[in-house]
Amino acid sequence: MKTAVGIKIIKTVEEMKDFVREERKSCRTVGFVPTMGFLHEGHLTLIKKAKEQNDTVILSIFVNPTQFGPNEDFEKYPRDEQRDLTLAAKEGVDVVFLPSVDEMYPTFPTTKLTAIDRTNVLCGKSRPGHFDGVVTVLSKLFHITMPDKAYFGLKDAQQVAVTKGLVEDYFFPIEIIGVETVREEDGLAKSSRNVYLTEKEREQAPHLYESLRQAITLVEQGERNKQKIRESILAHINEHTDGEVDYVDFYRYPSLEEITVLEEKIIIAIAVKFSQARLIDNVILDIEK
Amino acid sequence: MKTAVGIKIIKTVEEMKDFVREERKSCRTVGFVPTMGFLHEGHLTLIKKAKEQNDTVILSIFVNPTQFGPNEDFEKYPRDEQRDLTLAAKEGVDVVFLPSVDEMYPTFPTTKLTAIDRTNVLCGKSRPGHFDGVVTVLSKLFHITMPDKAYFGLKDAQQVAVTKGLVEDYFFPIEIIGVETVREEDGLAKSSRNVYLTEKEREQAPHLYESLRQAITLVEQGERNKQKIRESILAHINEHTDGEVDYVDFYRYPSLEEITVLEEKIIIAIAVKFSQARLIDNVILDIEK
Repeated sequence: MKTAVGIKIIKTVEEMKDFVREERKSCRTVGFVPTMGFLHEGHLTLIKKAKEQNDTVILSIFVNPTQFGPNEDFEKYPRDEQRDLTLAAKEGVDVVFLPSVDEMYPTFPTTKLTAIDRTNVLCGKSRPGHFDGVVTVLSKLFHITMPDKAYFGLKDAQQVAVTKGLVEDYFFPIEIIGVETVREEDGLAKSSRNVYLTEKEREQAPHLYESLRQAITLVEQGERNKQKIRESILAHINEHTDGEVDYVDFYRYPSLEEITVLEEKIIIAIAVKFSQARLIDNVILDIEK
Repeated sequence: MKTAVGIKIIKTVEEMKDFVREERKSCRTVGFVPTMGFLHEGHLTLIKKAKEQNDTVILSIFVNPTQFGPNEDFEKYPRDEQRDLTLAAKEGVDVVFLPSVDEMYPTFPTTKLTAIDRTNVLCGKSRPGHFDGVVTVLSKLFHITMPDKAYFGLKDAQQVAVTKGLVEDYFFPIEIIGVETVREEDGLAKSSRNVYLTEKEREQAPHLYESLRQAITLVEQGERNKQKIRESILAHINEHTDGEVDYVDFYRYPSLEEITVLEEKIIIAIAVKFSQARLIDNVILDIEK
């Protein structure tokens, strides 16, 4: 099926599998960008990266009900199919996989996949069951699209960590590519939530990333005391913004294990509440012992 | 690595994945026969079937610890690697995948896969957790070997049903082939446990299958009353053997749902305890409404 914007759309699992089988037969590599639609610049960067590294790029748009909690608003999740298709076509996506909920969950399940690690920290703490839904739908999507590489934004570093865990656990023959967070010129991480900031908050918001950059500088200067770095971040955000810090956390990455000393690969992640939006940001560092 | 018997053996996940990638590139179809080794004629029939239907056949031999319960004897499970390799070579297996436990379970898992349906009936009832281990190891093996088709004996019809459920749930791009039970000339289903029968019991044991064949005849003659068919099976086994009937059960197949009327695809499964061995057998019927 071709739309007005001239992009191939596939809505059924069988047709998607057939398409991928043909790509494989022609020895074409497949890059996969799973999304819930309502595409923003972050998604487009994933698509660009996938285009660079693969012969064929599949974008999926599927608002997955099983990763929403009972009090989270699955029904109200923003959707704009036509705009998404236009953007996908412009970026050169080869196929958009656009299944219905019944297509993805056709039968009563006989098994259950649960995320038992890497989930009870950062934003996962307040979303019980969320990552069960994520690993379930990704297992399905990975088998349907059988990509060589799948692309995820590192802005949601926890999702990347959980997905890497899934792929390692079951030896999925897929490489998970975490793509650097896309930022505004002033450093603010791009997010669809940024529009909910007041004008004043929008001016303050780049200080989230600035606080993380200062943390990097401290580490580069030899600071290894987690508490001192946390205090520096807190002080900077409190001084330069009206936001309320939700967390400033340090973990091993991607295992998301607690750490006492700063060494090897770690993530410094922050969440800050503004009046109408809660923003997150993070940096991942490789620290020599 | 080639052995004295001249068969290719692969012991690491990475090497196995590389091998399969090359097969795919050459457009060769792959058939996969997962086993726990100690091969008997049932396994050899699966291999023969896989040879008929695919260009390349991979046999895995892996005694999977996670499908053994705490009181089941993982350590004492019979192993005879050299004999298995000789048999596999004779049948024309292309590669034997022979991983260690550490190779298959290298990291602490971040997710858990649980079989929540089709398990609490038949033999699964008395083996809690068994099928969790089965679906976990099969998910790994399927990703490592990426076959077009995977072969399982219908003697363990519940395992086939659970595996089909797994593949449907997550859209694995793999066809599960249930292969007819191989029987002795007198009808007894082949099993490594048959050697534990006394001479007298061995003479009686074909009556298990005979009781099922009589059940088929009753259905063919129009009988649709489950209880009457059960009674016929029970009477036949009690009359002709010293075995103690453990169960005679009727379920929809492969969903293993309870049924009240006999119609559509069903399984009639029996388990009978002899002095030193518990034998199982089953037939799967497609009954017109």
